[in-house]
Amino acid sequence: MSSSVKTEKASGPFSNILVIDLTHVLNGPFGTTILSDLGARVIKIEPPGHGDDTRTYGPFYKDQSLYFSFVNRGKESIVLNLKDEADKAIFLNMVREADVLTENFRPGTMKHLGLSYDDLIKINPRLVYASSSGFGQTGPFAAYPAYDTIVQAMSGIMSMTGFPDGPATRVGTSMSDLCAGVFMFCGIASALYAREKTGQGAYVDVAMFDSTLAFLEHGFMEYVATGKPLHRIGNRHPFMTPFDVFQSADKDFVICCGNDHLFAELCKAIGRLELITDARFLSNQSRTENNAALKSELEATFKTQPAAHWLKTIHDAGVPVGPVLNVAEAAVHPQTVARNMLIEAGGVRMPGNPVKISGYEDPPVRTGAPTLNQHGDALRREFAVPAKAAAE
Amino acid sequence: MSSSVKTEKASGPFSNILVIDLTHVLNGPFGTTILSDLGARVIKIEPPGHGDDTRTYGPFYKDQSLYFSFVNRGKESIVLNLKDEADKAIFLNMVREADVLTENFRPGTMKHLGLSYDDLIKINPRLVYASSSGFGQTGPFAAYPAYDTIVQAMSGIMSMTGFPDGPATRVGTSMSDLCAGVFMFCGIASALYAREKTGQGAYVDVAMFDSTLAFLEHGFMEYVATGKPLHRIGNRHPFMTPFDVFQSADKDFVICCGNDHLFAELCKAIGRLELITDARFLSNQSRTENNAALKSELEATFKTQPAAHWLKTIHDAGVPVGPVLNVAEAAVHPQTVARNMLIEAGGVRMPGNPVKISGYEDPPVRTGAPTLNQHGDALRREFAVPAKAAAE
Repeated sequence: MSSSVKTEKASGPFSNILVIDLTHVLNGPFGTTILSDLGARVIKIEPPGHGDDTRTYGPFYKDQSLYFSFVNRGKESIVLNLKDEADKAIFLNMVREADVLTENFRPGTMKHLGLSYDDLIKINPRLVYASSSGFGQTGPFAAYPAYDTIVQAMSGIMSMTGFPDGPATRVGTSMSDLCAGVFMFCGIASALYAREKTGQGAYVDVAMFDSTLAFLEHGFMEYVATGKPLHRIGNRHPFMTPFDVFQSADKDFVICCGNDHLFAELCKAIGRLELITDARFLSNQSRTENNAALKSELEATFKTQPAAHWLKTIHDAGVPVGPVLNVAEAAVHPQTVARNMLIEAGGVRMPGNPVKISGYEDPPVRTGAPTLNQHGDALRREFAVPAKAAAE
Repeated sequence: MSSSVKTEKASGPFSNILVIDLTHVLNGPFGTTILSDLGARVIKIEPPGHGDDTRTYGPFYKDQSLYFSFVNRGKESIVLNLKDEADKAIFLNMVREADVLTENFRPGTMKHLGLSYDDLIKINPRLVYASSSGFGQTGPFAAYPAYDTIVQAMSGIMSMTGFPDGPATRVGTSMSDLCAGVFMFCGIASALYAREKTGQGAYVDVAMFDSTLAFLEHGFMEYVATGKPLHRIGNRHPFMTPFDVFQSADKDFVICCGNDHLFAELCKAIGRLELITDARFLSNQSRTENNAALKSELEATFKTQPAAHWLKTIHDAGVPVGPVLNVAEAAVHPQTVARNMLIEAGGVRMPGNPVKISGYEDPPVRTGAPTLNQHGDALRREFAVPAKAAAE
């Protein structure tokens, strides 16, 4: 692939891959960021005006939209008006050389532009063409307006999150968007692998709705087993106890006791030996039935000391335990730093790449997100329509 | 690859791939299920006794553990004791023919068994070896006990989920486990692609902790912008209003108004024209500042009619809206069925495969999860140590 506009980046398994990226906002750009992190050259096509909408979204850091920066690091940017014939010709030249095309417009938009999968494989049969959308390219709700909150609501994940006496609760991150982005990457990587055998591209159709359904786990099991929806149970485990969040004299922390042995070790460590032989707490099943009473007993002790005391005491006893950290604490946790999950790209700190593969760089400092049309001139030269072809 | 023990399954991009799967419980098996869905042959190695712990977990349906069934469909099962020399020899024969090996033991366990990546590439340099763990193979917390709840707590995702006046809230699904499973698949697919170029395998090291950090989105942005943790804001959008859950006369529903135009359309549709010109609600910023007052005004109207009325009225006005569904409703939603996201495997209904790739089957009825050691005899014959080699 051409590399006249070369940015410094991690070499990776996809270092020979050229991605033409029409995605915007969150789900598509998150997926193509993984491609970029794993070595692909990603050219982001942005519309005239302010480009990707997220360039205008907060929060900002030194005039950079963090929303945009977090999911566009390492990419190149060019503004193209796909309704303009000259710009479209440059775009089609890119497609001819590309390995992957990604888009997350509403279903039907690319066809309306004459840029559907069927259109583009005519000029590049090796193209892997990936679409990410709210509800997918097919089915009665394909055109239904989709925001992360709508998909979280309709997929059932909100109904599973929260407390029995409280409302259905949105997951505090745009998990439907992000899951779709990762699954789009999965489809692209799989289709690129298959292309090595077949020589042919493929069409990848990923939906935020499908991706969230695939994550429902226990709620879906409960429905299949009983035909009924799961009742929300807050932070505790459905069938292991004590396995929950607990209050101390200061901060909250979690304990995960999966069996009688760990429960006994916990009781010994905190000086509450009588709980081991309490008839209400003899088995995991009885502890689960009496979870409110047990929580009350345990918290009576926990509230006498700060969380740091209990974390050390309980961990030293071999019982799984951990603090409830806020993001500011998690972001600079020694493990976060050791795993290179706090990187700097274009002068902005952000989460790193969780896909660690031996033999490739995982640099702590990377190329940042591009300014709007930063690579426009160079890319227009690189993918210029030849004078001869233009004259035809 | 050998296929004497052939199960009927979707052909897919990985139909030539043999996976030796040592993973158990949730994160690893979820990742290798995606491989199975996309055509790979996955041989699950289970320990003597009751096999994978999740075979004993509820909920059950017709004596099948749904927990086990949901993340082991389409796989083969053999019981091997890796501490027994004869069984280990069969295992090593499998490794010699395998493309992928997966494991999610505590870091160090495979090395202790003499089965580390460095050990196994000596007998199969093309092996892609993937480890999934709670905190990763490296760093000061590599050995820290990890359950999904502990990782959710320590990664910050719990601190972001829930309401301002309520506690940090666990995401109602094991999202740290599931994210690690998907990212493990990402690493495997990427390494298999690269192997086509290099001829060499690779080591993939994925952690639940890293995977969750990669999903923090807005919370991480807020920390980078301000140095402070995000305050929980419940179900509403941080900077768009009205973009929240609302109560009707019966069920809750969500509205996503991203701009002034949509807000005006909403007000017209529900007969509350005066809100458009209300000084508190003139701009998105002022609506966000006065979100509690606006919510109260809107709900005064919404509580006069059931959700079905408002969903139709508001949708017809072109404003993004959707119901808050429970999992029983989401599982049989027309879009779920149309997208083949409600499949049947081994007589059990479960979520389908969200990675849709053209040219491959996406069957609504699939091979279920194996019984313990279901393929043991056949696999012992297929991968038997030759008499000659055994005699040496």
